[in-house]
Amino acid sequence: MLNAVGREIPEEIGGRKLKPYNGPFSFKPKGRLHPPPLKAVFPDESKLLPSIKDAIKKVGLEDGMTISFHHHLRNGDAVVNMVMEEIAKMGIKDIKLAPTALFPVHEPLIEHIKNGVITSIEGSLNGPIGEYVSKHGLKEPVVLRSHGGRARAVRRGDLHIDVAFIAAPIADEYGNCNGMLGKSAFGAMGFAYADAMHADNVVIITDNLQPYPVTPISIPQIYVDYVVEVESIGDPSGIQTGTMRITRSPARLNIAKNVVKFLAKAGVIKDGFSFQAGAGGISLAVTKFLHEYMKENGIVGDFVMGGITGFVVDMLHDGTIRKILDAQTFDLKAVESMSQDEEHVEVSHMMFGDPHTCGCVVNRQHACFLGATEVDLDFNVNVNTHSDGLLLHGIGGHQDAAAGSDVTVITIPLLRGRLPVIRKEVTTVSTPHHTVDVVVTDRGIAVNPEREDLIEAVKGKIEIMDIEELYKKAISLAGEPKEPRFKDDIVALIEYRDGTILDVVRGVA
Amino acid sequence: MLNAVGREIPEEIGGRKLKPYNGPFSFKPKGRLHPPPLKAVFPDESKLLPSIKDAIKKVGLEDGMTISFHHHLRNGDAVVNMVMEEIAKMGIKDIKLAPTALFPVHEPLIEHIKNGVITSIEGSLNGPIGEYVSKHGLKEPVVLRSHGGRARAVRRGDLHIDVAFIAAPIADEYGNCNGMLGKSAFGAMGFAYADAMHADNVVIITDNLQPYPVTPISIPQIYVDYVVEVESIGDPSGIQTGTMRITRSPARLNIAKNVVKFLAKAGVIKDGFSFQAGAGGISLAVTKFLHEYMKENGIVGDFVMGGITGFVVDMLHDGTIRKILDAQTFDLKAVESMSQDEEHVEVSHMMFGDPHTCGCVVNRQHACFLGATEVDLDFNVNVNTHSDGLLLHGIGGHQDAAAGSDVTVITIPLLRGRLPVIRKEVTTVSTPHHTVDVVVTDRGIAVNPEREDLIEAVKGKIEIMDIEELYKKAISLAGEPKEPRFKDDIVALIEYRDGTILDVVRGVA
Repeated sequence: MLNAVGREIPEEIGGRKLKPYNGPFSFKPKGRLHPPPLKAVFPDESKLLPSIKDAIKKVGLEDGMTISFHHHLRNGDAVVNMVMEEIAKMGIKDIKLAPTALFPVHEPLIEHIKNGVITSIEGSLNGPIGEYVSKHGLKEPVVLRSHGGRARAVRRGDLHIDVAFIAAPIADEYGNCNGMLGKSAFGAMGFAYADAMHADNVVIITDNLQPYPVTPISIPQIYVDYVVEVESIGDPSGIQTGTMRITRSPARLNIAKNVVKFLAKAGVIKDGFSFQAGAGGISLAVTKFLHEYMKENGIVGDFVMGGITGFVVDMLHDGTIRKILDAQTFDLKAVESMSQDEEHVEVSHMMFGDPHTCGCVVNRQHACFLGATEVDLDFNVNVNTHSDGLLLHGIGGHQDAAAGSDVTVITIPLLRGRLPVIRKEVTTVSTPHHTVDVVVTDRGIAVNPEREDLIEAVKGKIEIMDIEELYKKAISLAGEPKEPRFKDDIVALIEYRDGTILDVVRGVA
Repeated sequence: MLNAVGREIPEEIGGRKLKPYNGPFSFKPKGRLHPPPLKAVFPDESKLLPSIKDAIKKVGLEDGMTISFHHHLRNGDAVVNMVMEEIAKMGIKDIKLAPTALFPVHEPLIEHIKNGVITSIEGSLNGPIGEYVSKHGLKEPVVLRSHGGRARAVRRGDLHIDVAFIAAPIADEYGNCNGMLGKSAFGAMGFAYADAMHADNVVIITDNLQPYPVTPISIPQIYVDYVVEVESIGDPSGIQTGTMRITRSPARLNIAKNVVKFLAKAGVIKDGFSFQAGAGGISLAVTKFLHEYMKENGIVGDFVMGGITGFVVDMLHDGTIRKILDAQTFDLKAVESMSQDEEHVEVSHMMFGDPHTCGCVVNRQHACFLGATEVDLDFNVNVNTHSDGLLLHGIGGHQDAAAGSDVTVITIPLLRGRLPVIRKEVTTVSTPHHTVDVVVTDRGIAVNPEREDLIEAVKGKIEIMDIEELYKKAISLAGEPKEPRFKDDIVALIEYRDGTILDVVRGVA
């Protein structure tokens, strides 16, 4: 079947019937949420267990079950490896791993994949595990989802979690916890909400057990079966990865300036202006320049949704924005702000971007600024695979922000090294062209022809060009890029946030 | 069938099979929660409606459906009457009303009962509607539940809500709201959580629409279908009813002093001491004396759960307790504290007392002090019916606090007017003797003989007597009370918090 971005989707794979993507707002769900089991914990029962092994035994983890993790500690996380090592030692096999995302720090999992401890994965793959999947495949295709899409899948039961292991930098022995306090504080705990509320069993793993009741309460005790204290849940400095420094490249700074200029000329930046801030080097620069522009012009925004960084905190502190809604915190300055600033508010990823709720935060965003690995002539965006075909990144909140925001801006350099970023066709469709409005490069700006309103709004105020022109410019500089050498086997599915299928990823020879 | 407090329970009533109460911790639930429907609200859709009538139309309210309300505004609530009047005008009939509680201010509902607009009620009845039910009955028996038990019933689907109408003193047009801010601020919104999360449709009714996003977020937008702005949701001064003033009676002050003395002698009041504070005149006095005792002895408590009043706020402010967990706020000083004190934390009634979670707050309480209409020689407690048999009060958190707390203290005068409060048998069993430990009166203290540990702990330190002695003392002063004149028809069921049946209430001649 061809879907609405022209990709061929098989009708079925590994026993799962696939529904092709049919436009961003075409699918209204029927039915009810996936309900978790009723429990009863009586007054004298303790939830505190001496080790992860005890927790694995107590929840009755068995071959073939699904376990989940959040990635708020990003490349500093220690919990996934710790739990998987214990599971492997206990001889449990055929686990479906459902992390919100994996990072280079999780490379040891490859051994567990080779040994049959992990046989399938639903979650974002950043780095080595993705490369392994591209080259070798798993028993079933990996399922990649956006942040909002994953929350949806968990709430709807498409992704049924037997045991959620939730890392917490502070918790009490009854399971109340948050991400804001403690030596391993990572800020918002947005990913953990859906898992805590829908998994059959919930285990809190903390390195900072404090007297009952721990507050603020992000995950409340009523969802928590067991609590385990460990030496360390990870290294919070790993939150801030290389992509999270503001760009120093003059060309990229120019992209950021042009984003603000475009939005200003289009009349989008006015009182109440609300946007989603990303954490890539260009996005950070956009935030900084937006801040300057809004301050100079006395504009006060309603909220910034994030992935929150110190750059956004600065906007809150000087009153340029009224509130921060934070589902995932991207640097330590923002972590500190969350525990101190009343108007820096934690929200879940259900609230951030689950399309099958009564409306998520992205619906209220006037603009978002997102990076891309590739953009094509139709305005489809690829963030998952590199141009060699390797599956090296997750979707993040890309699809969600693009679908919800009034104006979705993609910020890219025309060339990355010797590779043109604008292509005839993206290697993988991660975010569909229906939700992508503007592409800002260091050599010019293109607007999706579907957005006649935007083209009209900036006419005569800022130069825009056809995306074909940008493409030709790139090709003339770097030549046509080599096509990746794909095999036939499908190693991953790219789900759209509503559960339909946007694209498949094939193995790389 | 005889249940575990010796009450005869019919096997079935109105098509519902009844499960008899069998002890406080005997029933482990099977199965899963009641899941609400999946929704999809797309970016350009608005939730704001011009009137309650429009909301009733939009949610498709029909004859025979169930609607719910919270009672945080207590006797100041205007929303129940407003919505029911609109429903009556629209000609909708046979509504099942599922308020958390009704108060004297809701007396106009009697007309809707007479006219067949309301034909059944599941919820607490305080005052005139209760009296009406005692005298006339409804089509089906009214179901009374504790606060925790109601949350359980909603989460489990025993009480399926078609439309939850939630009064909010501040909300944005997308439905984010809290109870702490605005001219009608009432503090915690604990009752609304279960309804918002499990009802098929959710309508926020506010008198204070503020720009998006309203924070703190008690009920998040993802659960809210529609928002309606009205002139006024009620009068927050109605929160503080007559029972919420500290007693001035020397005899009752003496009861309060003896409670503190008993707990002190029993060794219960030490660092970490956590308790549930009530709002009756004697409970307030207990809180005050506890405060003094803890302060004098340098004891710092972990938390107070409530029903929170200014007396508890005082304890927080001077460091006698570390935290307040607040599901329902009982005076305006406490309302103010909730919006200002970081350690005064809102919790839901699922968290407060739902027994079919992974453990609720009551499980962590060292003590609670509760009032009673009657106590019997077995230590059963009645809070629902007066000695003339009229159904005049709800269960409140009575069952929950009693079940969870290490030491449950009932504070009563020996006589109320000319009526003995200790009886051979209570008129109605609201809280079972298995969870009642100590009865403190103005004429002596009795300890449940099942609590040998407590009797041992206070031996030689404080005088205790047999409850039979207290009973005889009361009878010798006031004579045997008249028995109420009951009819055969069952007008109400008293559910235990786990959904089993503790007792039935019969009509009064």
